[in-house]
Amino acid sequence: MKTVFSDTQLAHAPKQEISDGELKPAVEVPSRAEMVLETVKSRKVGEIVSPDDFPIRPLHRVHAPDYVGFLEDFWDKWLAAGRSNEAFPFVWPIRSLRQDIDVNHIDGLLGRYSMDAGTPLGENTFKAARASADTALTAAKFLLDGEQSAFALCRPPGHHAGFDFFGGYCFLNNAAIAAQYLRDYGLHRIAILDVDYHHGNGTQALFYDRPDILFLSIHADPKDEYPYFLGYADETGEHAGTGFTRNWPLPLGTDWDSYTPALEEACRWLLVYKPDAMVVSLGMDCYENDPISGFRFKSEDFSRLGERLKKVGVPTLFVMEGGYAVDALGTNCVNVLEGFAG
Amino acid sequence: MKTVFSDTQLAHAPKQEISDGELKPAVEVPSRAEMVLETVKSRKVGEIVSPDDFPIRPLHRVHAPDYVGFLEDFWDKWLAAGRSNEAFPFVWPIRSLRQDIDVNHIDGLLGRYSMDAGTPLGENTFKAARASADTALTAAKFLLDGEQSAFALCRPPGHHAGFDFFGGYCFLNNAAIAAQYLRDYGLHRIAILDVDYHHGNGTQALFYDRPDILFLSIHADPKDEYPYFLGYADETGEHAGTGFTRNWPLPLGTDWDSYTPALEEACRWLLVYKPDAMVVSLGMDCYENDPISGFRFKSEDFSRLGERLKKVGVPTLFVMEGGYAVDALGTNCVNVLEGFAG
Repeated sequence: MKTVFSDTQLAHAPKQEISDGELKPAVEVPSRAEMVLETVKSRKVGEIVSPDDFPIRPLHRVHAPDYVGFLEDFWDKWLAAGRSNEAFPFVWPIRSLRQDIDVNHIDGLLGRYSMDAGTPLGENTFKAARASADTALTAAKFLLDGEQSAFALCRPPGHHAGFDFFGGYCFLNNAAIAAQYLRDYGLHRIAILDVDYHHGNGTQALFYDRPDILFLSIHADPKDEYPYFLGYADETGEHAGTGFTRNWPLPLGTDWDSYTPALEEACRWLLVYKPDAMVVSLGMDCYENDPISGFRFKSEDFSRLGERLKKVGVPTLFVMEGGYAVDALGTNCVNVLEGFAG
Repeated sequence: MKTVFSDTQLAHAPKQEISDGELKPAVEVPSRAEMVLETVKSRKVGEIVSPDDFPIRPLHRVHAPDYVGFLEDFWDKWLAAGRSNEAFPFVWPIRSLRQDIDVNHIDGLLGRYSMDAGTPLGENTFKAARASADTALTAAKFLLDGEQSAFALCRPPGHHAGFDFFGGYCFLNNAAIAAQYLRDYGLHRIAILDVDYHHGNGTQALFYDRPDILFLSIHADPKDEYPYFLGYADETGEHAGTGFTRNWPLPLGTDWDSYTPALEEACRWLLVYKPDAMVVSLGMDCYENDPISGFRFKSEDFSRLGERLKKVGVPTLFVMEGGYAVDALGTNCVNVLEGFAG
């Protein structure tokens, strides 16, 4: 299986995040990608290739152009406002507030285009996020070229990023961009299976009214976990997309045995849907020692996950999402890929 | 003019706030109220009385009971979650996310019931906010008893707090609670004039569809200033309230001379509306040396403001809102009150 990766992704290097009323060390750090890359090399998963430079169009197929423009121009505006720290938004247009305003102030723009205060924007964030999206697009192209699988070693991750907002360490929705690209270049039915510990709220919302991109997600119950406000079992799509979203929110403490019924059900949906390709939003944060998560996967369970996904029997694009137990991240990730490769 | 104040308000003593990617010293601090109280005493504005203890009902006339319950129970839940710092929310249910969920997690609850990350919740916040609301209610009662004016020395402030969210240093909307109380106890038409530097988004939204409570606000253009997402000139009310909201967003750098045309227009609206009573949301942050604001009022301009409001000729309840140049806060506030008293 080919792995796509670009060093440019490492340029996004957040120092802190806001949590529990304090600024704490960031957990979505460049070493995550480096650790996975090293394990991909040492365990000889396959060739490692650099992403192509894609035009902006595939990003605009998923994200609002004004949002992408905001990300691109942000740092210059931030500097022009006399700021130099990494940026955190602090005010949001929630209910009773307007979302239709072209604000001037950089703090207003930050709030307009975000959903949380835990996702710092820095000087190189857009550059890294775009390289991460190009990584997913390049891997998607391998599927179009006939490969049965590919691994997009994406960082920053993507699945929380929505049509016009960032959050949850995510800026551009790599999995969604890749899925849309596969559609645009001829595949008719795409399934996205999100096995990150956190619900992929951005991905779900992007395709919520569409039957051509099935969204399945197994994750910690949002009543107890980020992103809190999406990912419930009663969300099943709308309009033409009704029935083409499925969520399996699971309780804190879930281990492999209590996870598998949901996974089996998701696989049955995949059998029925018969996608031309599957995009796996691959988080490793179900791991028992993940510092911010509450499931109990052991490292060998990630091998089982890969083996099970292989049996689905469709061309599969793995897109890396979360996972913050850096020391084990490479092992757990490559366990999935090797389990899949068989 | 009687002043209402309670020491209990001082129990809300935030230490920090999130701003520019850093935790900075809080600006909405107890000394604000102490400074105003001292000047009210030294310049002999009038009797200073303690607020009555009101039942919860007047709060529920304006705020969602579940929101008030959240504020009341918050600290116990925060401690139960193993936290002890003052609390900042960090994730919000913006567009595409759900607002109808009873989340369990304290971080989800914080996001559900807030609009920003600059408003720390501490152990005594609810106690202080309720004392602040009782202060406004007690002062409102003086108007019902026939007084021509009263000063509610409220802190924390209120005008950013909405039906079910806190933000902008505000938890309970003191001015809105007082206005609704005046309605409930027999007055037919209430005008709220908000002269705080920041738009009173909470107050506006609470009465946006009602003709019985006129909302007028003169403030910094939200394109350039908090709260960014409300307070524009095209917001004029809806449904039965159409025409009963008016905003005068003014550019940064506005001084008394460039402020007065808006003030005169607001006063003409008051003449036409003929309210039975007026509630003035009295911020002192139009002051030239305010640390977080960009208007250029001099201290003597606050006297002029009081003199002009006197000419409106209706019973007037002053409810203190913002103003963060602590050293000058007492002078500027009492200048308004003395200007009004004549």
